Amino acid sequence: MRVCVIGCGAVGSLFAANLAQLEDVEVWAYDLAVDHVEAINANGLRLTGAGEVVGNVRATADASELPACDVGIVATKAMHTDAALAATAHAFADGAVASVQNGIGNEEVVARHVQRVIRGTTFPAGKILEPGVVQWDVKGETAFGPFEPAPAPMETIEALADACTRAGMPSKALPDARPAQWRKVIFNAATNPIGALTGLTHGRVCERRDLRALVSALVDEGRTVAEAQGIELDEDPEALIDHAARKDVAYDHRASMLQDVEARRATEIAFLNGGIGRFGRELGVPTPLNDAVTQLVTALEDSWRR
Amino acid sequence: MRVCVIGCGAVGSLFAANLAQLEDVEVWAYDLAVDHVEAINANGLRLTGAGEVVGNVRATADASELPACDVGIVATKAMHTDAALAATAHAFADGAVASVQNGIGNEEVVARHVQRVIRGTTFPAGKILEPGVVQWDVKGETAFGPFEPAPAPMETIEALADACTRAGMPSKALPDARPAQWRKVIFNAATNPIGALTGLTHGRVCERRDLRALVSALVDEGRTVAEAQGIELDEDPEALIDHAARKDVAYDHRASMLQDVEARRATEIAFLNGGIGRFGRELGVPTPLNDAVTQLVTALEDSWRR
Repeated sequence: MRVCVIGCGAVGSLFAANLAQLEDVEVWAYDLAVDHVEAINANGLRLTGAGEVVGNVRATADASELPACDVGIVATKAMHTDAALAATAHAFADGAVASVQNGIGNEEVVARHVQRVIRGTTFPAGKILEPGVVQWDVKGETAFGPFEPAPAPMETIEALADACTRAGMPSKALPDARPAQWRKVIFNAATNPIGALTGLTHGRVCERRDLRALVSALVDEGRTVAEAQGIELDEDPEALIDHAARKDVAYDHRASMLQDVEARRATEIAFLNGGIGRFGRELGVPTPLNDAVTQLVTALEDSWRR
Repeated sequence: MRVCVIGCGAVGSLFAANLAQLEDVEVWAYDLAVDHVEAINANGLRLTGAGEVVGNVRATADASELPACDVGIVATKAMHTDAALAATAHAFADGAVASVQNGIGNEEVVARHVQRVIRGTTFPAGKILEPGVVQWDVKGETAFGPFEPAPAPMETIEALADACTRAGMPSKALPDARPAQWRKVIFNAATNPIGALTGLTHGRVCERRDLRALVSALVDEGRTVAEAQGIELDEDPEALIDHAARKDVAYDHRASMLQDVEARRATEIAFLNGGIGRFGRELGVPTPLNDAVTQLVTALEDSWRR
């Protein structure tokens, strides 16, 4: 199987380096960070932390170099999906493309460019330490399933999940990956922007009773939007949120969106709370709090642009 | 008439210096900023900007120095009302005390300490330039009326409004000052925290269609809480908000709450959106957006305390 990871940041690197351990998988990586690409080609792609891995990955910032691939794994920030797929779609004319990105609505963007799409949700996380080297912070499961309007064949999805699992990234091929995806987006949308707007860590957000109530109100809206699509969440986001707030889990975690705000980077708000709001409007489900949070974070980004 | 301004910051100074122009009014000022007090006693209290005034005001940071007064005018930040009245109430044993503070719920706090209370709302604004000197930015009207549960006599209210008007601070004595007060709190609560959370000026908040919609949703909640008390607003807050957004009015204005956040000072959120939420709960009117904004700004303050 030939796999191309599209967007070889922290999460993309976890897939690329691990999959490159398999003899029956050839791994390419497409990324625009030229120093990262050059380091990967020179020394391999190295993971450290939750696992020590060096993967033989062929990296490029020039999409025209990509050969025809069986599977793409999109791991860009959600707002870069469209440009990344416009550049790389030719490599998947006969293949399938999976999203493992944050938020909802990514598969819809992928499907503008390729015919066979895989819905994906992944929990592992990390960060780039230096070009070619990625800190693997958190292990966790990945779920893949067909993207309903433009589904990849189930055997392709199973082959991908099997390869990831054998490579050390435990993955499931599900007939419906939406419950896992909505559980994650509801978790993220209820916690990330609250950290970003207040500067508080996850644990401190949760120990303020007033703020924890706001988190629950955001969860409730997201759950209602999921249920309106017939999606039954596979786990209760509230339990995940409280679990993460424990001192021995992620009490001190500063949400990635808070890190984005502090670095004055664009956030993924449009694909988290904004995505919940968009689905809510299509389904006639009001999402006033997710809308308010989307508006506030979007405007906050605007404040440092001018 | 002997008047004591309690909290001689920008707004308090506008009342104190102007009232001191009148031959029939003696003005005292109680303030904890010792350098400001000393400058006022040495050189008078000077206003510059919208009016050039020097007032002969007797200032003190020692409440025990205050003589018996006919009227108090409370102009502290809302969260300091209780302490300021606990210190000064003895001076108003036979007098009345008016609040000209931001937000709602201030008169309730004043009434814990004195028997005759005047509800007040004022639009003039300014800032302290240096001890004893205040920039008068904006002229505007003041409304006074009885605080219903512990009302001052109407003749006292009329005498106060008449003195302020003669002193250059146009004021009305109304049988019901709640419409003016709720109009102002709804305006402030719909705009101040949005500026504070996003870093945007008033004009930029209003020109973003998404954010302007959030402002309107906050206004709607506040209006519903006002109407549930039988209060009919004397002007439409939406019109005031759009008027203020004009380039020739207050497009570039950074909300005072944004200035508080940038300086990491405590904000008046508990008396603006928090006050609307509190009244809403008492009346059974849901105020989810005002609650969310209260929670976010309160938590933001919390983030720089630890």
